[in-house]
Amino acid sequence: MNLLKYIDVYHNFPVTGIRFNDVSKLMEEPNVFKYIIDHLADYAKSNHADLIVGPEANGFVFGSAVAYKLGIGFAPARKPGKLPGDSVGMSYKLEYGEDSLNLRKEDVQDRKHVVIIDDVFATGGTLKTTANLISDLGGTVVGAGVILELTKLNGRKNINGLDLVSLQKYEG
Amino acid sequence: MNLLKYIDVYHNFPVTGIRFNDVSKLMEEPNVFKYIIDHLADYAKSNHADLIVGPEANGFVFGSAVAYKLGIGFAPARKPGKLPGDSVGMSYKLEYGEDSLNLRKEDVQDRKHVVIIDDVFATGGTLKTTANLISDLGGTVVGAGVILELTKLNGRKNINGLDLVSLQKYEG
Repeated sequence: MNLLKYIDVYHNFPVTGIRFNDVSKLMEEPNVFKYIIDHLADYAKSNHADLIVGPEANGFVFGSAVAYKLGIGFAPARKPGKLPGDSVGMSYKLEYGEDSLNLRKEDVQDRKHVVIIDDVFATGGTLKTTANLISDLGGTVVGAGVILELTKLNGRKNINGLDLVSLQKYEG
Repeated sequence: MNLLKYIDVYHNFPVTGIRFNDVSKLMEEPNVFKYIIDHLADYAKSNHADLIVGPEANGFVFGSAVAYKLGIGFAPARKPGKLPGDSVGMSYKLEYGEDSLNLRKEDVQDRKHVVIIDDVFATGGTLKTTANLISDLGGTVVGAGVILELTKLNGRKNINGLDLVSLQKYEG
């Protein structure tokens, strides 16, 4: 399926100079949403995932449905100040600005094989940070599945060889 | 299923005076997560939902899996500044402080029956605001499904008779 026709591009959003890929229709169109979840779930299953971690916020939408499909658990990697209890946190650079993600210690314990699910793969900062948080908590990241990969940004060189599948590449 | 044993309570989080219900384990425990999604999906199906709307952020986790299960679409009600394109927004009071939610016009168009899915039902502000946004965009809210209802806060009196199901009540 060519997913690009369901991704609307907004220029200068959220800040000047950014070409923003809006994934709203990928959630909203039932057949497209099902296609995405089924394919990401197949990938996670083939890598023997027993936990899905999704970064805030679109990783929640796609990651939780993948976890449900596979009958496994879901853990959110969240912005600061959102998670009670013991967690680890890490800051990183975005395509624009800086951000920080946190993961609860309890969420990862005893999970042997974690797959990260997110919407867009750009410079790799979000994925790398999420993977580092999981590793810090003793989990093993067996792969990552994303919907859209912006190949020009060369993010694969930033993720230390992490196995990554993308359902759609954008070369532009 | 008694869901209370999977909900950890944190006092004075995120701010002093608040008794915070942490739903992390409801996502993380596969059997519990499946129980929740299946029951909320049964409810949404019986109300003939053709779109699920989930408020940021835990509504994304539970709402999207419900939408996937039913083979329908999902639309997020988001905090300000997150959605590109045309949207409507509304501010409201939280149990603590104030917040604001936004919904994309395109996400609701032509959807006849919308069910809102969220984690915790407290004073009803989030649910009422989300329902108002959907109505403003021409959608019909046919119901709302939540996991935990804090009955002491009497939120049902604030939601204008909206049909609401909760999987677990907490009377304390």
